[in-house]
Amino acid sequence: RSYTIAVLPGDGIGLEVMPPALRCIEAAAKGFGFKFEFRHYEWASCTYYHKHGTMLPPDWKQLLQACDAIYFGAVGDPATVPDHISLWGSLLLFRREFDQFINLRPCRLIPGVISPLANRDGKKIDFVTVRENTEGEYSSIGGRIFEGTERETVIQNTVFTRVGVDRVVRYAFELARSRPAKKLTSATKSNGISITMPYWDERVEAISKEYPDVKVDKYHIDILCAHFVQRPRIFDVVVGSNLFGDILSDLGPACTGTIGIAPSANLNPTAKRGEPGKEWMPSLFEPVHGSAPDIAGKGIANPIGMIWAGQMMLEHLGETKAAEVMMKAIENVLKNAKDAQLQGEKDLLTPDMHGNGTTEGLGRAIEEEIGRL
Amino acid sequence: RSYTIAVLPGDGIGLEVMPPALRCIEAAAKGFGFKFEFRHYEWASCTYYHKHGTMLPPDWKQLLQACDAIYFGAVGDPATVPDHISLWGSLLLFRREFDQFINLRPCRLIPGVISPLANRDGKKIDFVTVRENTEGEYSSIGGRIFEGTERETVIQNTVFTRVGVDRVVRYAFELARSRPAKKLTSATKSNGISITMPYWDERVEAISKEYPDVKVDKYHIDILCAHFVQRPRIFDVVVGSNLFGDILSDLGPACTGTIGIAPSANLNPTAKRGEPGKEWMPSLFEPVHGSAPDIAGKGIANPIGMIWAGQMMLEHLGETKAAEVMMKAIENVLKNAKDAQLQGEKDLLTPDMHGNGTTEGLGRAIEEEIGRL
Ligand SMILES: CC(C)[C@H](C(=O)O)[C@@H](O)C(=O)O
Ligand SMILES: CC(C)[C@H](C(=O)O)[C@@H](O)C(=O)O
Repeated sequence: RSYTIAVLPGDGIGLEVMPPALRCIEAAAKGFGFKFEFRHYEWASCTYYHKHGTMLPPDWKQLLQACDAIYFGAVGDPATVPDHISLWGSLLLFRREFDQFINLRPCRLIPGVISPLANRDGKKIDFVTVRENTEGEYSSIGGRIFEGTERETVIQNTVFTRVGVDRVVRYAFELARSRPAKKLTSATKSNGISITMPYWDERVEAISKEYPDVKVDKYHIDILCAHFVQRPRIFDVVVGSNLFGDILSDLGPACTGTIGIAPSANLNPTAKRGEPGKEWMPSLFEPVHGSAPDIAGKGIANPIGMIWAGQMMLEHLGETKAAEVMMKAIENVLKNAKDAQLQGEKDLLTPDMHGNGTTEGLGRAIEEEIGRL
Repeated sequence: RSYTIAVLPGDGIGLEVMPPALRCIEAAAKGFGFKFEFRHYEWASCTYYHKHGTMLPPDWKQLLQACDAIYFGAVGDPATVPDHISLWGSLLLFRREFDQFINLRPCRLIPGVISPLANRDGKKIDFVTVRENTEGEYSSIGGRIFEGTERETVIQNTVFTRVGVDRVVRYAFELARSRPAKKLTSATKSNGISITMPYWDERVEAISKEYPDVKVDKYHIDILCAHFVQRPRIFDVVVGSNLFGDILSDLGPACTGTIGIAPSANLNPTAKRGEPGKEWMPSLFEPVHGSAPDIAGKGIANPIGMIWAGQMMLEHLGETKAAEVMMKAIENVLKNAKDAQLQGEKDLLTPDMHGNGTTEGLGRAIEEEIGRL
């Protein structure tokens, strides 16, 4: 088996975390008898934009559709390119164009990573955020009127569609059903945002009837954020709109230790490659973190977000065994790295995990561990 | 001096925290030679709604405008009255009708209250959220089309006006200027919400020119929430839209220990009572927490959110000395209560603060401490 992967490292630390992550997935492939063909592209980056005045080449869509999946680093350099150009011209465009309507973001307390939360009961934190990824608050419709005057007014529409809401909610219910806790939490704000969010609640309520075996609850986003800090252990699957999912999937990993390890799978779960009469819509795998201009070039970015995203890509490609090994390798290395750090041995943990390790060092350790497992 | 206060306890624990809070502000008044005339109203509650079919009597506006300030408990009983009736028919209506465009919500790590964060450096957490309180995401315009069909689409408009944004941003800059750290953080999401949030950023940027002495930074709401957990000490004044301010002002107190102590001042800072030709717009003071049906009737609600809101009301009324004493009393009681708890003496701390105290017990302790100071 061979998979063709579009490799888009992007900007900033995206360029630094991609090489070790590629080595890790190659190591996993080696152990399980499959191969990758990597197609490296430097577009979907601000570097490319500076040279060409556009984020993408004209044939970007065909190039990506020729691949089984997209492996994406991080994009953006707000100091030189406005976000609406860099992000809406790449990542957010891909999510829309390939209808990657599910954004899956697991959040786990992994031994070896120190959480900023005082862990009082030792129980594990292990939940997944299912984020709607194409509509909602990220609508791009609206505009300005009476510009430059006292009456200046700016409006943006939040758009929820029946199709868009139902498919993400149903996906989240299915996911909850497949997990031992069988619990779904819906993020809402229907007490304040009085038109779109009550609709979201209604659809969750309606669809919950199809899943009597799944426990459902809902919280308004304000108190839900508070619960993430105060009772993160009560969550199993959390479903939210584009904005709420975005917020929760940064907050969750912050609570378990660092955003540096968090992965993000942008899925079109219904697309099948080669289906007659249908356009192929590849899924995209990226770390949750951004291009982080503040630490770019220092070689200290945590490569685990990118590696874990690769792990999700393997799972998506059906390489479950290899994915399991990758996850195990990440866990082993983190645990051992912490022990080593405590014993004053070589520190592999990157600064975001309270160590002084490097991207290269930590990446190599995981690559080698994959080889061993 | 005498102040007329509209007392609206509302529903649930609002009814339980109001009496001790009234005793506390009376105790403070006694020490500083002023008085209150309390006008108790049972409307703006679901209880009233069940009896009368409306949340408010027809003359609610005149009744409230006859007062210097509004002291509000908590409203809502989602099991029997939809939020859009109970909340948009009282609290959210008051914010709009009295143009209480500033919602001020302090967040402090107070000795005696255990934070869920592992406190690694012992530095204090002490910031204020300035929340826009009348527009933005809480727009109430939009609607549904193609209802009940596959094409069903629901749209809600987020509305930012020049007047609305500028006044809250300017207020936040003034507040930052008045504090030792002189630092303002703006909550945005201009990378994803591409029309309204870039406008917000532009106004913050433009107004920052008037305040060269104030350090300004901005974070997208996702990473800002993460920073609240990971580096809460870097914040001084945080300004956000209606929704972002709502989220941050629950998350902040969750990080410092409990939402149960957090106060909320809904201010119309330009209104002056008795100004000729202008309608009087009273300000409203409430706890951040809601009516909490799950613990209502048990007598264990934390009264400090309501008491601290009373403290902010005194400050707003110009009774700075009395306000200082109230704050000191809250701090003393919390500190002593923790010491007592640790020594196995009478536990005054309510369950949200990991104790088994009662609303009555904790309220009395603060009332008495105010009397002593
Ligand atoms: C009850 C709700 C509508 C309200 C809000 O979102 O404004 C509350 O959460 C608050 O923070 O005051
Ligand atoms: C960069 C930004 C537009 C993006 C988002 O908000 O979707 C990022 O925060 C994410 O979570 O993938």
